[in-house]
Amino acid sequence: MQPGKGQKEKNFKQRLILKSRLAKETISEFLGTFIMIVLGCGSVAQAILSRGLFGGIITINVGFAMAVVMAIYVTGGVSGGHINPAVSFAMCLFGRMKWYKFPFYVGAQFLGAFAGAATLFGIYYDGLMSFAGGKLLIVGENATAHIFATYPAPYLSLTNAFADQVVATMFLLMIVFAIFDSRNLGVPRGLEPVVIGLLIIVISSSLGLNSGCAMNPARDLSPRLFTALAGWGFEVFTAGNNFWWIPVVGPLVGAVIGGLIYVLVIEIHHPDLDPDFETEQSEDKTDKYELSVIM
Amino acid sequence: MQPGKGQKEKNFKQRLILKSRLAKETISEFLGTFIMIVLGCGSVAQAILSRGLFGGIITINVGFAMAVVMAIYVTGGVSGGHINPAVSFAMCLFGRMKWYKFPFYVGAQFLGAFAGAATLFGIYYDGLMSFAGGKLLIVGENATAHIFATYPAPYLSLTNAFADQVVATMFLLMIVFAIFDSRNLGVPRGLEPVVIGLLIIVISSSLGLNSGCAMNPARDLSPRLFTALAGWGFEVFTAGNNFWWIPVVGPLVGAVIGGLIYVLVIEIHHPDLDPDFETEQSEDKTDKYELSVIM
Amino acid sequence: MQPGKGQKEKNFKQRLILKSRLAKETISEFLGTFIMIVLGCGSVAQAILSRGLFGGIITINVGFAMAVVMAIYVTGGVSGGHINPAVSFAMCLFGRMKWYKFPFYVGAQFLGAFAGAATLFGIYYDGLMSFAGGKLLIVGENATAHIFATYPAPYLSLTNAFADQVVATMFLLMIVFAIFDSRNLGVPRGLEPVVIGLLIIVISSSLGLNSGCAMNPARDLSPRLFTALAGWGFEVFTAGNNFWWIPVVGPLVGAVIGGLIYVLVIEIHHPDLDPDFETEQSEDKTDKYELSVIM
Amino acid sequence: MQPGKGQKEKNFKQRLILKSRLAKETISEFLGTFIMIVLGCGSVAQAILSRGLFGGIITINVGFAMAVVMAIYVTGGVSGGHINPAVSFAMCLFGRMKWYKFPFYVGAQFLGAFAGAATLFGIYYDGLMSFAGGKLLIVGENATAHIFATYPAPYLSLTNAFADQVVATMFLLMIVFAIFDSRNLGVPRGLEPVVIGLLIIVISSSLGLNSGCAMNPARDLSPRLFTALAGWGFEVFTAGNNFWWIPVVGPLVGAVIGGLIYVLVIEIHHPDLDPDFETEQSEDKTDKYELSVIM
Repeated sequence: MQPGKGQKEKNFKQRLILKSRLAKETISEFLGTFIMIVLGCGSVAQAILSRGLFGGIITINVGFAMAVVMAIYVTGGVSGGHINPAVSFAMCLFGRMKWYKFPFYVGAQFLGAFAGAATLFGIYYDGLMSFAGGKLLIVGENATAHIFATYPAPYLSLTNAFADQVVATMFLLMIVFAIFDSRNLGVPRGLEPVVIGLLIIVISSSLGLNSGCAMNPARDLSPRLFTALAGWGFEVFTAGNNFWWIPVVGPLVGAVIGGLIYVLVIEIHHPDLDPDFETEQSEDKTDKYELSVIM
Repeated sequence: MQPGKGQKEKNFKQRLILKSRLAKETISEFLGTFIMIVLGCGSVAQAILSRGLFGGIITINVGFAMAVVMAIYVTGGVSGGHINPAVSFAMCLFGRMKWYKFPFYVGAQFLGAFAGAATLFGIYYDGLMSFAGGKLLIVGENATAHIFATYPAPYLSLTNAFADQVVATMFLLMIVFAIFDSRNLGVPRGLEPVVIGLLIIVISSSLGLNSGCAMNPARDLSPRLFTALAGWGFEVFTAGNNFWWIPVVGPLVGAVIGGLIYVLVIEIHHPDLDPDFETEQSEDKTDKYELSVIM
Repeated sequence: MQPGKGQKEKNFKQRLILKSRLAKETISEFLGTFIMIVLGCGSVAQAILSRGLFGGIITINVGFAMAVVMAIYVTGGVSGGHINPAVSFAMCLFGRMKWYKFPFYVGAQFLGAFAGAATLFGIYYDGLMSFAGGKLLIVGENATAHIFATYPAPYLSLTNAFADQVVATMFLLMIVFAIFDSRNLGVPRGLEPVVIGLLIIVISSSLGLNSGCAMNPARDLSPRLFTALAGWGFEVFTAGNNFWWIPVVGPLVGAVIGGLIYVLVIEIHHPDLDPDFETEQSEDKTDKYELSVIM
Repeated sequence: MQPGKGQKEKNFKQRLILKSRLAKETISEFLGTFIMIVLGCGSVAQAILSRGLFGGIITINVGFAMAVVMAIYVTGGVSGGHINPAVSFAMCLFGRMKWYKFPFYVGAQFLGAFAGAATLFGIYYDGLMSFAGGKLLIVGENATAHIFATYPAPYLSLTNAFADQVVATMFLLMIVFAIFDSRNLGVPRGLEPVVIGLLIIVISSSLGLNSGCAMNPARDLSPRLFTALAGWGFEVFTAGNNFWWIPVVGPLVGAVIGGLIYVLVIEIHHPDLDPDFETEQSEDKTDKYELSVIM
């Protein structure tokens, strides 16, 4: 190897290495959400476009869950693998992430989800075109809009829909907090993503009937916007009695409640977190557990 | 951060931190059983209310198993994650838990299961109302009572039903004892809940046909009582030739037999548990393996 | 606690503790094979007796695999969790177990499988009786004999059947050897049973069509004998052109070939096993890798 | 044990122990690809030959994924368990393997896949012969050629097919790089194969509809050649508008892109890889990250 060449290569790499940690984390969240949408919504696409022949509720639930697992494995070491504004919101609120990062994380998540939806549209372009004679439909047996975003069941009222998203995301965050709580039972380090995958499988198997269990504003809103622009039309927003805002607002509320339940019922009672003990320890910590915002 | 604010916050947290270990454990068991019922019975609800379109035997078995996994991850570090009176009964009987805690654990489990059933009823309220034209039925193709509690197969006699619950819970406890026996093969620490989930998958895939494999008095009786009060009527108790007491009493008997088999066949033969060795060690231990109650 | 009582209790336990290691291992293999048959064949029973409503190829494959996983967790620390005469045969042949133990292991496995079949018959007695109007049939759509033992597909010749059992068991043993080879990639200690479970899932998903992939003389012959005695009649032996001996002899041959391939292709090439190195080490080892029997 | 016998045995083993590391790795890749094809394509065979009765999209996706898992467990400690020319290509390109090994790895993979296809043909010979009255067909409801190689969906254009293979393999390699990146979240050592299995499950559940998601030149081309020779005829190459070269070339392109994305977006930004740090370390390393070939 010529020294000159190696040096030049290193300069090239040096330019590539992002100096700012925040920039790294932003691009990581973009990539993670991108992966989740292509592989997760892709599992829905395969089931719908094959009319159930090469996919169904099981491949969708397992596929979406494992898409999240893989997104976390790719990005977890850099940005924590939130890939969900509701998760980032709860992390900030409970002192696990600083607020100034929040807009960067959330922006990257929305952009990554949009890019993922566009990529999936490209991969299945021929399939989508042949599915309903070239039409991109929102309702009926030839509908394909629900490949990208979630829509409520016909029986569902808006009140029940909102409660559904709040409760599902509440369970998601409550248990995610437990999975990462090393003073609880403790998932072995490096296996947290797999257990989160199992968690998503059970939530989407149990609370997925009402409205598809989005639990994630970026996962739902960005692909919905993409479908509006790509040919399904802006009825994707008015469908289901203007359902679109439910999987955006509901998860934020549910994430706060879920985190709060875990912290109040389980976490603050851990033996090594009694007040005197923490007084000694907390000097060099950031404002962990600062619940002042919501109390 | 202002010192005054931090101090005030700490006082607030100090009040929240439960001084009594038993109180912590009780509330933990309540939360764990609550999680299990919402996500576990929720998996049944999704399959039934979608008439098999978004769920079936696989999502039910996997969903219920993973609901138990998640409940144990949330509560295991605090209360051991029993979430089942039959497990608590065996733990007390085999000296792994003190008897004075038993009523608190069991009470919390029954209350948590009731609260879980009520929450699930709320989340799927619109779905339940639209499923059978507003009727809440116990039998027939529009029945929904078996979302919450188990009912026997038409062919099943009471004798066979009782044997079924005894044997299923016997396998459950025998293998749970093995999973937590660090002197046996040894599930890696922190992964026991996942292996218990796999265990519940196989038991409900193999011994679930007769009567749904409750194996847990709280999981069955509390949701059954809820359905009786919520509109299904007290026929939920008389159905199946007064089947209701089978999943209450059977699991208690089976848990004892299962624990006993494991201890007698496997555990007491471990090399480092020979009598002389234990004489030295047992002074500072509680009455482990005191089988006097049943012998 | 009274000293006298504690002493008496210890004497009682002392009597229970089996002095002989071989006796312990024998009883452990009995229990393991018993668990495998009840939960494994139970998964087949649930699918057949519900006519596919509460089980199918997935619950059968996953159920049988996880039945093996649980059997190994219960018995692995005591007897290694062979629960299969073909495995014990390979272990002896490749120096991982002494030959004098072989008849005890195999006897326990056959007895455990028989007891498991009888127990399963008891648990599903009402279901079996109501399934075909009280008749216990071997062929036709109301057949139930294949709950217990395997039968060949109609198209299968005896030659192909024998090759099928040889090749399937060859893969089983080859990969089991890899899973327990700590100098290869290395499954983390305590998770080997789960990976073996995944292995059984893939083998029964890929090589299960010809004749149900028994791969285990005890798993097949003992339940077949039970069905012959319990009312299905001795046609269970003549069925499929006297198929019964194929899953007995085939697995023994396949196990040897599979172990041999792994040892010759992978294991003996590991760096720390070069001849000089081993000369130093092998003095205090038993006849590991003594292939003299077959060479 | 007689010394003479032991000595003779050791000489025998000494001859068997391959001196050359490359020879070991070549034979290991052969065995790994062989295992993957028999068990992976075997899962497809079982589903097709049983006309969906004993297999379907779930057993195929899980079966193929676990076939890869087992192949990696058998070969990972010796040759890294590539079992895919696209993986070997990326490993060489990104400095994880020396180029001189590339032809040996790839040759072994193609030969192993061919041998696997032939073995599978033998195991299911009776089934294949009876399936379509002795005919070996490429199209129609009695087709069996897609047991061995992949074919495009009717709607798929060649452009979309190529993009499909590029993108699928891009995700595969990007995430495989993450799984083995110990400075990222970190899959526990020894469990990487299982997580790769989960990855293959999600990719084949989400991106498998277009053309079966081969992502591997050896997995597709060798079995296709086998079917051409074994009786299906050379139409297996012309089918689907000469589709055969897409799963050969596409994966190579996708692997490079996937690896590149992971390295550029995630890996080079890890803190301990800043340029100065690496200058010190890189002297005794091979040309890791030498991207000169493609830049």
